[in-house]
Amino acid sequence: MPRYRLTVEYDGRPFSGWQRQAHAPSVQETLERAGAALNGGEAVEVIGAGRTDAGVHALAQVAHLDLVREMRADKLRDAMNAHLRPDPVAVLDAQAVGDDFHARFSATRRSYLYRIVARRADLTLDVGRAWRVPMKLNHEKMQEAAQALVGKHDFSTFRDAQCQADSPVKTLSEIEVIRLGSEIEVRCAAPSFLHRQVRSIVGSLVEVGRGREPVRWMGEILAAADRSLCGPVAPAEGLYLTRVDYPDQ
Amino acid sequence: MPRYRLTVEYDGRPFSGWQRQAHAPSVQETLERAGAALNGGEAVEVIGAGRTDAGVHALAQVAHLDLVREMRADKLRDAMNAHLRPDPVAVLDAQAVGDDFHARFSATRRSYLYRIVARRADLTLDVGRAWRVPMKLNHEKMQEAAQALVGKHDFSTFRDAQCQADSPVKTLSEIEVIRLGSEIEVRCAAPSFLHRQVRSIVGSLVEVGRGREPVRWMGEILAAADRSLCGPVAPAEGLYLTRVDYPDQ
Repeated sequence: MPRYRLTVEYDGRPFSGWQRQAHAPSVQETLERAGAALNGGEAVEVIGAGRTDAGVHALAQVAHLDLVREMRADKLRDAMNAHLRPDPVAVLDAQAVGDDFHARFSATRRSYLYRIVARRADLTLDVGRAWRVPMKLNHEKMQEAAQALVGKHDFSTFRDAQCQADSPVKTLSEIEVIRLGSEIEVRCAAPSFLHRQVRSIVGSLVEVGRGREPVRWMGEILAAADRSLCGPVAPAEGLYLTRVDYPDQ
Repeated sequence: MPRYRLTVEYDGRPFSGWQRQAHAPSVQETLERAGAALNGGEAVEVIGAGRTDAGVHALAQVAHLDLVREMRADKLRDAMNAHLRPDPVAVLDAQAVGDDFHARFSATRRSYLYRIVARRADLTLDVGRAWRVPMKLNHEKMQEAAQALVGKHDFSTFRDAQCQADSPVKTLSEIEVIRLGSEIEVRCAAPSFLHRQVRSIVGSLVEVGRGREPVRWMGEILAAADRSLCGPVAPAEGLYLTRVDYPDQ
């Protein structure tokens, strides 16, 4: 069966997350319904690189699916989008790939963006698309504190209790905290992440940024490998899956 | 009566525009309702620098209002925001000003941003917040064509039939077309604009960008001063009032 790789953008707000669930709308199910409609009604399975949580967005999630017969990739993209309307899920790109390509298992690196807006006023245009923190944040201290996390570590402190990964040991390839006006962006990348790892890290960095904890605290709670020491987990609405890399790139 | 200057952000989608109207929600009325609530129930008038159309957004509209008694400016900002909730209108900043300050008549320069996303797939996160154009656009040609508009001209070609300005002669201080990935941004500034001038200019620039008209066409239709030669007017959803300048700045 011919396999296709899709680059997918979505607004996470109306979904219970990427993963198909019995009684709640998911991005995966939404894509599978569109895929079945152009697959002669045959069910399709859509496998994603990252199983984003409820309310988490994607600018470039990568997924794959198999069709019963070949189709031009640009026609597949347009047909998927026609069937996805009006759900806020869009296929930005489709490519024919070999059946050794697996969106999840072939991925070598995932990149995330977390958007924080530090201000007193409620969000208007960005409501549901960023985390508003109603106090001043020192992004330079956040950037300094974050560097303690880079490399291979036991990330138990930043791991959700429901995480199903075999091991809490992960390698954080990079993390960067930058300021753009009143917005603070946290960008990070790793071969893979634990459940809620990015949101746990961001929530803890905000404790440093607002001055409740010193810069060195980030490295201390990492070293303790103790979930109870993690800061309040940042909400889903600020998180974006921005890129997935594969060996062929 | 003490006067305050407000910097206001809003999502234009739910509003019939800035200006108060009898039977439709407006940004002005929404702010006036919040203002009256903290003015002991006394009605207030909120005057804005730019009367944005239905669906047009603002990142930093400037407005003024008079209260019956003095209030700390930061308290005014927070109280306005409490009363504005959950409408997507937020007061980012409030300042006490002299009664010679007039948000509309004192303004010396207005700046707008127009966001175009050039792609086949529907918008998801940016729906209602940008104009999707389903074809490739040459932003360099758009930038070159736009420069013909800079300076003092009769802008009749780019003026809506319902425009109430005394004269079609305006001075466009600057206009710039830049590309950020699949997004094209048009930024422009002038002491003041005609009704739908920015959207008329952007719609015409897209005709150049998609290759239906040559670069020189923009200058030709400007010189003709003939509304019938204008390209299709760009939709409201991509337009943002981004800044208003005053002599004291």
